[in-house]
Amino acid sequence: MRLPLATRYTDYDTKGHVNNAIYLTYFEMARAHAWRDVLGMPDEPSFILAEATVRYVSAAMIGEALEIEMRTGEIRNKAWVWEYVIRCTDDGRTVAEGKTVQVWFDYAVRKSVAIPEEMRAALAAIG
Amino acid sequence: MRLPLATRYTDYDTKGHVNNAIYLTYFEMARAHAWRDVLGMPDEPSFILAEATVRYVSAAMIGEALEIEMRTGEIRNKAWVWEYVIRCTDDGRTVAEGKTVQVWFDYAVRKSVAIPEEMRAALAAIG
Amino acid sequence: MRLPLATRYTDYDTKGHVNNAIYLTYFEMARAHAWRDVLGMPDEPSFILAEATVRYVSAAMIGEALEIEMRTGEIRNKAWVWEYVIRCTDDGRTVAEGKTVQVWFDYAVRKSVAIPEEMRAALAAIG
Amino acid sequence: MRLPLATRYTDYDTKGHVNNAIYLTYFEMARAHAWRDVLGMPDEPSFILAEATVRYVSAAMIGEALEIEMRTGEIRNKAWVWEYVIRCTDDGRTVAEGKTVQVWFDYAVRKSVAIPEEMRAALAAIG
Repeated sequence: MRLPLATRYTDYDTKGHVNNAIYLTYFEMARAHAWRDVLGMPDEPSFILAEATVRYVSAAMIGEALEIEMRTGEIRNKAWVWEYVIRCTDDGRTVAEGKTVQVWFDYAVRKSVAIPEEMRAALAAIG
Repeated sequence: MRLPLATRYTDYDTKGHVNNAIYLTYFEMARAHAWRDVLGMPDEPSFILAEATVRYVSAAMIGEALEIEMRTGEIRNKAWVWEYVIRCTDDGRTVAEGKTVQVWFDYAVRKSVAIPEEMRAALAAIG
Repeated sequence: MRLPLATRYTDYDTKGHVNNAIYLTYFEMARAHAWRDVLGMPDEPSFILAEATVRYVSAAMIGEALEIEMRTGEIRNKAWVWEYVIRCTDDGRTVAEGKTVQVWFDYAVRKSVAIPEEMRAALAAIG
Repeated sequence: MRLPLATRYTDYDTKGHVNNAIYLTYFEMARAHAWRDVLGMPDEPSFILAEATVRYVSAAMIGEALEIEMRTGEIRNKAWVWEYVIRCTDDGRTVAEGKTVQVWFDYAVRKSVAIPEEMRAALAAIG
């Protein structure tokens, strides 16, 4: 799944670079797109984040268009991995990459539960 | 009421200035302090914002300690005004000033209601 | 000028509403679009903000697509007004409106200067 | 090194939890404190981030005071690790933990360089 990133002036720090924390927001924008637009789920996610990792490869400067690619990695019983690569649209270089681990969560009983079978298939198709 | 502002690196833009939108967050930090710590109310406010104005007087540069002063202005039947001045702690110059209009709101019935009498007195004491 | 707003999950507060400070960021997104894409200027603006006002008309809930309309208001010697209306795309209702005052600024000498003549015409055309 | 975290209303998402990306900002607040107040360095850092990891242990709810503990981990030739634990001040439970890898960077020549000897000792003392 590929998505152009709508960057904001507030994303950039005093050096003109995208601030390090914003990459997790970019990952979240990709997840929101996958969740709502690809999987057709409601706005509020029914999973929680267990872990997030970002590797900063090259600085993204103000004025550079960015895009994100996201794919599903390993799918376990209750958890799955999403992997991300953020690239500069113009020169194609990698700006950052990372992954997050999600746990399927039943907010009614407030505990993690097994990923529903039909969701496993839908998740596996994101690539 | 006076409060030192805990600034963050993400508050600053590519020119090293506090970003214009962050001043509304600084106003919100003052309101949260007034609401919880001065008025002793719960974390979730029972008012809504109707209006906000900021005048940018001088740029706040990274590394400058900032503080905010907040006082209650006019109190009407359902609404009241809070006024703010943000100053550089070191040289005392004004960085920004503004005001917000709050409306007392009953979230149970989702409509604005008259400010409770004891709250009027408590609000009037913030200065 | 009209622009769909790419909202983010972090824009929403604990009540599911767009946070009050984010509207200034939405205004900034419209300015950035006008500056770069309509006026063809470089990424770093050559103006400073003097004032911003937001009127909160109705709460924007998570899941609602938003769009912003921006037009140039009064143009003075060194300053001009931009006016904004943010609407819910689906039902067309106004969510917030406001204005900002910009001052043309020469960063080399760090003072405000008269708006260049050709820029006055270009600004006037934004509506 | 231990630091109380000045949380903001905008840190919380629609479920009343600290948003996942904000933890990287909390890590950054600890780094800024270490850099300026413990190490006595200027506001602009002379390192770049190479990697960041967050493990989300328990949700931090609005109204809970938070604190962060930060210590230096491994120190290599050009890079070093900082480790973080964020706890709820009242009950002491861990909310999140993580680490970042920093690379000493010479902005004049725009390349990574060996960590200066006296900085190695100062970094090692943060624990």
